[in-house]
Amino acid sequence: MLRSIERDGEVDRIAVEEPLEIRVGREPVAVTMRTPGDDEALALGFLFGEGLIDGPRRAAPPTDFAANVVEVEGPLTRELTARRFYLSSSCGVCGKGALEEVAVSAPRLAGGPRVPRDLLADLPERLAQPAFARTGGLHATGLFDPSGEAICTREDVGRHNAMDKVIGWALAQGRVPLADSILCVSGRLAFELVQKAAVAGCPILVGVGAPTSLAVELAADRGMTLCGFARGGSVNVYAGAERVT
Amino acid sequence: MLRSIERDGEVDRIAVEEPLEIRVGREPVAVTMRTPGDDEALALGFLFGEGLIDGPRRAAPPTDFAANVVEVEGPLTRELTARRFYLSSSCGVCGKGALEEVAVSAPRLAGGPRVPRDLLADLPERLAQPAFARTGGLHATGLFDPSGEAICTREDVGRHNAMDKVIGWALAQGRVPLADSILCVSGRLAFELVQKAAVAGCPILVGVGAPTSLAVELAADRGMTLCGFARGGSVNVYAGAERVT
Repeated sequence: MLRSIERDGEVDRIAVEEPLEIRVGREPVAVTMRTPGDDEALALGFLFGEGLIDGPRRAAPPTDFAANVVEVEGPLTRELTARRFYLSSSCGVCGKGALEEVAVSAPRLAGGPRVPRDLLADLPERLAQPAFARTGGLHATGLFDPSGEAICTREDVGRHNAMDKVIGWALAQGRVPLADSILCVSGRLAFELVQKAAVAGCPILVGVGAPTSLAVELAADRGMTLCGFARGGSVNVYAGAERVT
Repeated sequence: MLRSIERDGEVDRIAVEEPLEIRVGREPVAVTMRTPGDDEALALGFLFGEGLIDGPRRAAPPTDFAANVVEVEGPLTRELTARRFYLSSSCGVCGKGALEEVAVSAPRLAGGPRVPRDLLADLPERLAQPAFARTGGLHATGLFDPSGEAICTREDVGRHNAMDKVIGWALAQGRVPLADSILCVSGRLAFELVQKAAVAGCPILVGVGAPTSLAVELAADRGMTLCGFARGGSVNVYAGAERVT
């Protein structure tokens, strides 16, 4: 979603960013900055990744059509806390705690497709980012089958939102867990993106950018395949190399 | 901060990501994923940008040296809410509300330096990202004087964290508001980065990537100069062109 602006006396196009309030059972749960569109999927994907719902739910704008609000059927699966992997003030906070917290809702993945390295390296080319080409301002996430066919691709100013929109779509379609699928993102691979893929049961995650240390640790811990720097026909495999042929 | 890992039988280096718990007056306020280092500055910059403190505070690891925790002297300047610009469930959520919320803590900026366009275009080159060159996994923010001299640069796996670390440093140094300075970031320009710069009173913000619609609106609303796509010797000016010569 793009908006035209005037810059240096000419028309330019930039990516739209607006806040979205997500409510569950009429109670506000979160506000996120996102590109409008697919808001119901964004809400479902976000709530599922955070462990706040455990399956598809009805989601719609409120009956009074308040701007930028989506209401999801309640109740919450777990109580709201400041942050998912926040354990207790006595344990300190550590990467190990974050890994353990994800493990509760994301069983270790075994099996899944085995995919040629060349195909994984080529996935970013198949993300097809029409708005990005015009603005450079959007992140993309794509869901692919093992042959590299795109099943669902979404764009957003927020990299987390793009993945939430894809996973929320899959959830509504009854496709979660994504046992026989590959997720590919246009940016870097930090902890939270791997967490979302793990909770959705996706065994392979590919990114155009670099992974972080905790992203690699989480992927290895959950039995996932994590690939970074997928560009120019090559890709680095950081975890789960047994699925790469 | 980098960590060595083995990949495809060779040693590779990736950016370290770990959670940090931020406490104010011994109460947990937030958990953020960040690259360890400059944690006290990160905490101060984050809290200041969110309007939770209104000036420098003492910040240190807790006396029991719990891992990845920083304690900031209390009390909070305002009560914690789910999200800063969350206004009320009756108003709906909108970009206008987000702008008005920032306006409360960030007065409109007038004056400030006038800077040659060439210098703004060149600032990303001066960010000097040593860790990025080796891993591709870190974002950088730099604080510059009007002649383009770097005053403080910081790197982090999170783009918001890199700016929080710079602003937290400036806060502790008594340099806020940053009335005669320029901030430059290695990535895209979304709402929250402009918000942080506005609250810190910085009149010019430059990014390597694209701005979003709400980023441009907020910069224009607060009287800031916003520049994007600073690369290859050119730069686009989206707001506040009167400071660009």
